[in-house]
Amino acid sequence: MEKRLKIPLGTADVFGHKMRLRKHALKAIEQTYEQFGFELLSTPIIENAIVFNGHHGEGEKLLFNLKDKQGNDLVLRYDLTVPLARVMAMYPEIPRPFKRYQIAQSFRDDDVDHGHFREFIQCDGDIVGSSDPIIDSEIILIAASGLKKIGFNSFKIRLNHRKIIRALARCVSQNCDTIKLQRALDFADKTTKSGLESIRKDFIHRGFTDSEAEKITEIISIKGSPYETLESLQKIFLSHKEGIEGITELKKIIDYLPEETYKHVSVDLTLARGADYYTGFILEGIIPNVPVGAVLGGGRYDNLMSSAGGNHEPATGMAFGLERIMTAMEDLNVSTDNNNPTILLYTEGSMNPKRMIEKAQKLRAAGFMVDLNNKIKDIEEAEDYAKKRNYPIAIRCSNKNDDIAVLKNNCPLSPEIIQTFI
Amino acid sequence: MEKRLKIPLGTADVFGHKMRLRKHALKAIEQTYEQFGFELLSTPIIENAIVFNGHHGEGEKLLFNLKDKQGNDLVLRYDLTVPLARVMAMYPEIPRPFKRYQIAQSFRDDDVDHGHFREFIQCDGDIVGSSDPIIDSEIILIAASGLKKIGFNSFKIRLNHRKIIRALARCVSQNCDTIKLQRALDFADKTTKSGLESIRKDFIHRGFTDSEAEKITEIISIKGSPYETLESLQKIFLSHKEGIEGITELKKIIDYLPEETYKHVSVDLTLARGADYYTGFILEGIIPNVPVGAVLGGGRYDNLMSSAGGNHEPATGMAFGLERIMTAMEDLNVSTDNNNPTILLYTEGSMNPKRMIEKAQKLRAAGFMVDLNNKIKDIEEAEDYAKKRNYPIAIRCSNKNDDIAVLKNNCPLSPEIIQTFI
Repeated sequence: MEKRLKIPLGTADVFGHKMRLRKHALKAIEQTYEQFGFELLSTPIIENAIVFNGHHGEGEKLLFNLKDKQGNDLVLRYDLTVPLARVMAMYPEIPRPFKRYQIAQSFRDDDVDHGHFREFIQCDGDIVGSSDPIIDSEIILIAASGLKKIGFNSFKIRLNHRKIIRALARCVSQNCDTIKLQRALDFADKTTKSGLESIRKDFIHRGFTDSEAEKITEIISIKGSPYETLESLQKIFLSHKEGIEGITELKKIIDYLPEETYKHVSVDLTLARGADYYTGFILEGIIPNVPVGAVLGGGRYDNLMSSAGGNHEPATGMAFGLERIMTAMEDLNVSTDNNNPTILLYTEGSMNPKRMIEKAQKLRAAGFMVDLNNKIKDIEEAEDYAKKRNYPIAIRCSNKNDDIAVLKNNCPLSPEIIQTFI
Repeated sequence: MEKRLKIPLGTADVFGHKMRLRKHALKAIEQTYEQFGFELLSTPIIENAIVFNGHHGEGEKLLFNLKDKQGNDLVLRYDLTVPLARVMAMYPEIPRPFKRYQIAQSFRDDDVDHGHFREFIQCDGDIVGSSDPIIDSEIILIAASGLKKIGFNSFKIRLNHRKIIRALARCVSQNCDTIKLQRALDFADKTTKSGLESIRKDFIHRGFTDSEAEKITEIISIKGSPYETLESLQKIFLSHKEGIEGITELKKIIDYLPEETYKHVSVDLTLARGADYYTGFILEGIIPNVPVGAVLGGGRYDNLMSSAGGNHEPATGMAFGLERIMTAMEDLNVSTDNNNPTILLYTEGSMNPKRMIEKAQKLRAAGFMVDLNNKIKDIEEAEDYAKKRNYPIAIRCSNKNDDIAVLKNNCPLSPEIIQTFI
């Protein structure tokens, strides 16, 4: 009996305050993608198992597997990127560039002891079929616009470039493994607060020589404006082809940004991002003073599409991290009060139900949200009812007159305007 | 390799025209529920298997089963009603009445040969904790408002009451099985076009006696306005307690409706609905001349909540049938053109990318959706690009001037207004 009243670990029921946070964030993210001409895509939650084979390395252990009645091997999708690659390969008729967003659940049968979700919403936006740096600039703009629309006034967009990281590896030594450096940077990035000395030690611990570790810490401690950082780096890379390419590309992407976005941007040489598939610029968004880590991330990945059986196509994109964004919203008390909250319409008993519905319908026709309740005894019960549901206004109907009670400060609805409709 | 480019039978990728239909319908449904003060609820797609045990009879064979790494028995949810019952039992602190909607995927491992979906979106709205008939009237209003908001001008809301069906069984004979009659009515309902005679024969085929079949066909062929039908029925039921209760309840529910909703309503004595759990009024929505069957359905079910381990609580609700609604929209050519479609902003090459982005951002700040493309050769390519994506307007930028081309009749955007922003 008890398990009937439980949900699986790492899943959630969402309603009330938490749903208001989620709706607010998702609406802002959706509107942002649409503002940039992105089209909504929906793909199935259950996919043929083979679609996810060979894409996520160690991650494949986290796939939820199932079989249908016909015995087909299925999985719950692990992410939204592999299905995008499948779609691009399956429907060559989709016009390129394809700017798509998808806000939907993915599933990972992960350990749930440290608050991991096994079913969670991803908010991906990607552009397939363009290698133009202006498109990467647009991705950065989406990141900034989305965070602003959610209600964050203070945020940072951190940038780096995978070609810069590869060049950095070459600078360190001829045999330096890029992936190893990438991992070391990623770790250093997450622990920068512990100081350069402990980062240098970690590099040595990871098998870099003393002089290599010295050189890396020297380079990643370059500070300054985006342009200053790239200029300092140019002097280090000298004529290293890939390094100069990375610097030139990143410079273009930053050049195209409007001033009000540029001011949020930094070039961070420790930024590496976990996923191996990035090939070009990478980005991460953080909210200062909120210790949740990156609230969004992404970058250019020009080789992933072909690995799903389709043509080689360039691609770039990003994803908002919904759960972390919601945590940051709560920490900073970001307002989710919408302009059109629900009104409680009640009677203490004297009102004819048909007349109640007429009143409710008039208000609804005028664009208001109305919760009608015929069974409320008095104003105290009405206030309690409205408070529990976060309604700012309650209207008591009677055959004589209607009383409008404003129950919250900063009520976004005008009682005077409501009065004209009842 | 081939299966990599397939999706499981009974699932779908949705984009382009079909996604525009879906978004239009879902937005209308969502707005309708919110207008009536319904709160959005989200529950996990994966549930503990036991939650769905004993709820769906034969339907349980259609559950998708899976196990997680810890060996827990899980299922993909079969519907949204059982999870609602679980939520009501799990969180007694949720204030009642709880008006919730949920628009989300459910899963059934069904035969897929006749176009059945195995993963499909349900659009449920329910009210738990009120037995007031005004709440049932509101459900009917939601049905009518939703269909109207989607764009259907002509529709019918068919009503009946489970107590009327039970009384009907008693009228037919003392031993008449209500469920058997319910199934027979449901079948008759779906085949009314084949005429009363063939319905009478089906009743006999199902084991009713000649005189029983005669009596049922006589009663279910009662015609007239809702009130006329209920009056005729009253004469047949005489003092049969449950029958009179059903008539009285249904009469109240209809009484409370505004005139403009009442005109869409009929009382149909053949309406039975498949699910066994209904206890009170039942409803179905149809679009005349569109042969898709019911586009929505629902009713009152006062005994379901307690069966999920919670308290006994009255409940009423309905669900819009998304796929059928989309089919009807296509059949009737319901317009999905929104007021704010996307604008293509392109250059034939001469324009500085930074200036392009500035222009795009100005338009976006003014509330327009802008797809920026830096790689379009000429107006023909621009027209082709915009047509494939259903954009009504393309703006060609150059350093000299910007040309606005209107590409569709009935373009909802004003080129003159756009001009003032670039």
